[in-house]
Amino acid sequence: MAYAGLPGEVLVTEVGTRDGFQALDLFVPTATKIEILNAFVRAGFRRIEASSFVSPRAVPALADAAEVVAGIDRSTGVRVACLAPNPKGAERAAAAGVDEMVTVLSASESHNRANVNRSVAESLEGFRVMADIARAHGIHVHGAIATAFGCPFEGEVEPERVAGIAAALADLGIRTLSLGDTTGMATPPVVTACVEAIRRQAPATEITLHFHNTRGIGLANVMNGLQIGITRYEAAVGGIGGCPFAPGATGNICTEDLVYLLHELGIETGIDLDALVAVSRRVEAVLGRTLPGQVMKAGPRLTRHSLDSVRHAKG
Amino acid sequence: MAYAGLPGEVLVTEVGTRDGFQALDLFVPTATKIEILNAFVRAGFRRIEASSFVSPRAVPALADAAEVVAGIDRSTGVRVACLAPNPKGAERAAAAGVDEMVTVLSASESHNRANVNRSVAESLEGFRVMADIARAHGIHVHGAIATAFGCPFEGEVEPERVAGIAAALADLGIRTLSLGDTTGMATPPVVTACVEAIRRQAPATEITLHFHNTRGIGLANVMNGLQIGITRYEAAVGGIGGCPFAPGATGNICTEDLVYLLHELGIETGIDLDALVAVSRRVEAVLGRTLPGQVMKAGPRLTRHSLDSVRHAKG
Repeated sequence: MAYAGLPGEVLVTEVGTRDGFQALDLFVPTATKIEILNAFVRAGFRRIEASSFVSPRAVPALADAAEVVAGIDRSTGVRVACLAPNPKGAERAAAAGVDEMVTVLSASESHNRANVNRSVAESLEGFRVMADIARAHGIHVHGAIATAFGCPFEGEVEPERVAGIAAALADLGIRTLSLGDTTGMATPPVVTACVEAIRRQAPATEITLHFHNTRGIGLANVMNGLQIGITRYEAAVGGIGGCPFAPGATGNICTEDLVYLLHELGIETGIDLDALVAVSRRVEAVLGRTLPGQVMKAGPRLTRHSLDSVRHAKG
Repeated sequence: MAYAGLPGEVLVTEVGTRDGFQALDLFVPTATKIEILNAFVRAGFRRIEASSFVSPRAVPALADAAEVVAGIDRSTGVRVACLAPNPKGAERAAAAGVDEMVTVLSASESHNRANVNRSVAESLEGFRVMADIARAHGIHVHGAIATAFGCPFEGEVEPERVAGIAAALADLGIRTLSLGDTTGMATPPVVTACVEAIRRQAPATEITLHFHNTRGIGLANVMNGLQIGITRYEAAVGGIGGCPFAPGATGNICTEDLVYLLHELGIETGIDLDALVAVSRRVEAVLGRTLPGQVMKAGPRLTRHSLDSVRHAKG
């Protein structure tokens, strides 16, 4: 039984090798990416956002998306999702054999323009083409709305605006949807208003929450998400990724801290936390810098320390 | 109106200059401590745990407790609390004119022994002497139970054990009580069980929650605390402090991230968040290292960025 009437089971999607790696200056070798992704599979993830079929010139860090997808062991039934930013990317993703294509737009016009140089209406029109490509290959399309809880250029984003986009996506047959907390503006009341608006305008849509910890309240937002019945979350191993507007601030919530919280609430994820922490330490070694994740530093909750360790710590 | 039936008002106690500074290798000059504390007062705090009347040999960083207390501007009515670890400390605290003495013991025998070299029963007996000293001076005594949600040596701590200590403290007239998450073992179910046990065994006791962010879920625990009706929290500016068992892990939850969350939930604190962030930046400069706080890095939620800043961030 989960704590306090919360959902008994949650689907956690690991997005680190896409959302965390995309902004790296260094190119993580393809074999290392595959090793990390297969460690996620062995740790029990049922859905992974592995890479992005974006232009290799625009994002050289993810230029090996097709090879990466080919290297993932899918014998456990793990679903491999990848971003497809345009029809060309959708064709490449389909050829690589992804299970899901993720199409992204921003809720605010100025962020969508800054990100993909298109209006929101133009993005939605492009999604129609991508949905056709995916359908032709029998591939599921998952939508993602960036700046769903606020825009760094425009400020507040109206819940009804996000819900209108969700309804337009539903009309295209896109009925699984991530709400992205792009610059860490999500708060419990803002998220609840957005989810309620989507439940009115696109009632058949299954919502995933993608929070950032930019202002320290990422897991407080998860607590609220659970309370309003959301059972799907995205997170990045070690809390990798960042916010381009806040140097030094963290980006994505940390997957192992999220899984730790969920398990302590009595919620099943199917993920082996110790195995996940081991991957996080491996990613830390690969990236060569300290990651924001806390559980990877503190260890399991019931770690026993000897009295000698205190004397040492004090000394 | 606060969000979702949560309490409308919360008392946030700043503990940074005590709990954060006590473990420092460097001695923050007395005038700087007073400057920081008076900045907290101007930011609107109504209760501050300023220092500790511990032996100056044991904790040289806080050897100036009396001068620090004397320098605090109390014209706003702010309550100044200080730790008093023993009768001698209580006499010094009384002479310094604190508003509240804080007496601390650990819920687990082995942690209490490691911390103060006494059994829990011996600590409680000492509290009787300190309570008498405080009463003679008309000073309020506030209790604090460390390792209330778990012990690094013993593992789980039974809620009924913590509640029994709370009842013993209530018998001594100590009816305001902080529950300390000493090594970051608090989780929502563990905290709720502990609070419920105290409400049964010491129903007149007013509970304050003191969480650490050692495993990343400090503010998730606050969300739960609010849901079970707790309206008093302790936190440290910038998230200073640490956990001796987890090198690199954070200690106390960060005050400004907590205040940000509370305000976004529509809960009043009386604290000016911008002023608090300014103090946090000052503390960061004084300590000469990056602090764990996130709001101090990311800025206010509705900070507007120009499109040029993106191009710069991408470039």
